Amino acid sequence: MSLIVQKYGGSSVADAESIKRVAKRIVQTRRAGNAVVVVVSAMGDTTDELLDLAGQVAPIPAPRELDMLLTAGERISMALLAMAIKNLGHQALSFTGSQAGMITDAQHGSARIVDVTPKRVQEALDEGAIAIVAGFQGFNRVTGDITTLGRGGSDTTAVALAAALGAEVCEIYTDVDGVFTADPRAVPKARKISRIASEEMLELAASGAKVLHIRAVEYARRHGVTLHVRSSFNNHEGTIVYNPAEPGADGNGDPVEEPIIAGVATDLSEAKITVVGVPDVPGKAAQIFNLVAKSGANIDMIVQNVSAAATGLTDISFTLPKSDAQTVLTTLTSERQDVGFQALQHDDQIGKLSLVGAGMRTNVGVSAQLFTALYEAGVNIEMISTSEIRISVVTRADQIQHAVRAIHTAFGLDGEAEAIVYAGTGR
Amino acid sequence: MSLIVQKYGGSSVADAESIKRVAKRIVQTRRAGNAVVVVVSAMGDTTDELLDLAGQVAPIPAPRELDMLLTAGERISMALLAMAIKNLGHQALSFTGSQAGMITDAQHGSARIVDVTPKRVQEALDEGAIAIVAGFQGFNRVTGDITTLGRGGSDTTAVALAAALGAEVCEIYTDVDGVFTADPRAVPKARKISRIASEEMLELAASGAKVLHIRAVEYARRHGVTLHVRSSFNNHEGTIVYNPAEPGADGNGDPVEEPIIAGVATDLSEAKITVVGVPDVPGKAAQIFNLVAKSGANIDMIVQNVSAAATGLTDISFTLPKSDAQTVLTTLTSERQDVGFQALQHDDQIGKLSLVGAGMRTNVGVSAQLFTALYEAGVNIEMISTSEIRISVVTRADQIQHAVRAIHTAFGLDGEAEAIVYAGTGR
Repeated sequence: MSLIVQKYGGSSVADAESIKRVAKRIVQTRRAGNAVVVVVSAMGDTTDELLDLAGQVAPIPAPRELDMLLTAGERISMALLAMAIKNLGHQALSFTGSQAGMITDAQHGSARIVDVTPKRVQEALDEGAIAIVAGFQGFNRVTGDITTLGRGGSDTTAVALAAALGAEVCEIYTDVDGVFTADPRAVPKARKISRIASEEMLELAASGAKVLHIRAVEYARRHGVTLHVRSSFNNHEGTIVYNPAEPGADGNGDPVEEPIIAGVATDLSEAKITVVGVPDVPGKAAQIFNLVAKSGANIDMIVQNVSAAATGLTDISFTLPKSDAQTVLTTLTSERQDVGFQALQHDDQIGKLSLVGAGMRTNVGVSAQLFTALYEAGVNIEMISTSEIRISVVTRADQIQHAVRAIHTAFGLDGEAEAIVYAGTGR
Repeated sequence: MSLIVQKYGGSSVADAESIKRVAKRIVQTRRAGNAVVVVVSAMGDTTDELLDLAGQVAPIPAPRELDMLLTAGERISMALLAMAIKNLGHQALSFTGSQAGMITDAQHGSARIVDVTPKRVQEALDEGAIAIVAGFQGFNRVTGDITTLGRGGSDTTAVALAAALGAEVCEIYTDVDGVFTADPRAVPKARKISRIASEEMLELAASGAKVLHIRAVEYARRHGVTLHVRSSFNNHEGTIVYNPAEPGADGNGDPVEEPIIAGVATDLSEAKITVVGVPDVPGKAAQIFNLVAKSGANIDMIVQNVSAAATGLTDISFTLPKSDAQTVLTTLTSERQDVGFQALQHDDQIGKLSLVGAGMRTNVGVSAQLFTALYEAGVNIEMISTSEIRISVVTRADQIQHAVRAIHTAFGLDGEAEAIVYAGTGR
């Protein structure tokens, strides 16, 4: 009997009817002869409603109590799902993160998994029951307190359980059919990807593709878990995220048969800050980025202009999440005298386009092809950054939609039919 | 520093504003120099809403999963309350039933407390923090599962913690000013009782007074916990429920100074079943009540008519909760041949009036005075039952309101002003 871990997001269990529908699908998987562990998020908007309540009683809610509050969400959905399954005549037992052995550090709101000891889950499986586990939540052994893994944490719970229990596959159910070559809402000719290597999926997730949480993909890659991203609203095959490096893993996709480019991702969530007139002496860049790091911001791309010989001054630009920009501007302004720069520029009208594909490694012409295609589409490039299997460019935000369609076509990614887009956003 | 346990019901924490109001009251108690443990119920109608959701996914929800579901309710209220207190600048930590050491048997939905080990609560107090504990919920050590204590269980949680921690008093906050000589909604001249012995409170609760749950009063009596029932909407002194037998307890109310009658309670929740034409031979009553017990019904009062010598047949009547009547009727009907009775009568239009007072022990005229007063008020008595400190009579349901006012006046319980009645029902 092979073990399948299934994860259902909030939109798949938004109300009693959805829960009953999901329960049927789970029982079908069980009756087909598989052992089944289900990881479930909070119903629909529950998490946002609880956050809203917290904001009403305290402007900055205590992190320990916020975790206690938010974990009520999965408690509700998992208990209801277990009831619905039992009502269909199959044994089911629900487990909190703590009961399922999701041991984390004590970082409330963004805890990291330090151990997974799913003894009770395994016992439930041994008795033939379907185990329902609360996503997103964990337990710290030292403090005895409940923790949460942060947004998208339910995907990570599912992957961690799949790794610990040696599951054949971890199915991530969402409201879209799988991973697409581009966001189908922006690019109508986007195609569903049937198989993608985990390193490519990692770059896509890091570049703005929202269907899978980057942390879950990282965990799956490190522990050799095969993911299957699919819709809970139909029975279509979704996207398999496989680990080519893993011995015995589902890695029969030979690199030579793969397309050079897996997909195009876009990201409108970043802003650009430019530090103007920085003295071009050793140590200045380090000083600036130490200040940025201290303010807690996550830097993405960095560009330093060539110094103008006449003045001995240079400009340094970097991108970061829009939500971090104000803190960084405040920090840098307060240290302006000490650093010795002339001015700060803040630009929140940028967009980032990323081309991802393992085939880039062996194909040197990809950058040139990208820049040419953008030029022909009349899109101006402001910043460039590359990794081994990714090229990202920053453009004006209002050009992103035009750019992604042009690039999708230029790299031969267009499908024959238009992609079907479902409501909702997934999580 | 003395320790006070405070329990707030669902109507006291119905929304964010109420939670902030309660938080202020708790912090005041702490700043007055007391250590404070707070037990809290789920917000307003949360429990009913969760029950409704459960009913939508499964007609008969699995008891283990129902407990998992319902305990989300206090998790939300306790976390919000702890946040609100911290926001007022005081340390606060919330604890689930399990974290607070409420160890129970494995009877889901109506678990009994078998041990209370509030180590973490004590540690929080030792650090100067206010401890917030989820009412209603517990933990079974053998199964590792979450349990609930049943309706009104939050009162029991508060009393059990007060006993285990050696609290000076357990304050039960509700939406009325305390315990009254009769339900102020039915008897406008009902007076608030300032002090009442726990055995009297027990009889009042058992006779239909809803302000305190009978199980909590029993626990308080057995463990010598002094209760203070009061309103969370003002600062009036409420009703002290004391334990005269307990050495060193707040028992300075000398019996000779007490009124003979503490209060009058009414109950419209029972039905009467009469088994007609039962052969008057030994063992028949035992046979009937064994059948009733097997069907799980709780019998209250029993009356057996004098046998008619000519027929050798007798009638047996008993009262029981209306919700149990149908099951009992079905069970008895199926055994009619074997028991040999002639017919069953079912009457759900009865009311019960109970007069409670420790002074009855030494005052033999109370029954006579009650029957005379009811006769003068034109109320017909159908059944009578007595304990050492209580007399209960069954009348027609539609005469109960008239009867309770007449009795309240006849026994000199009327206050000078009309009682103030607040909205809501308490819990």
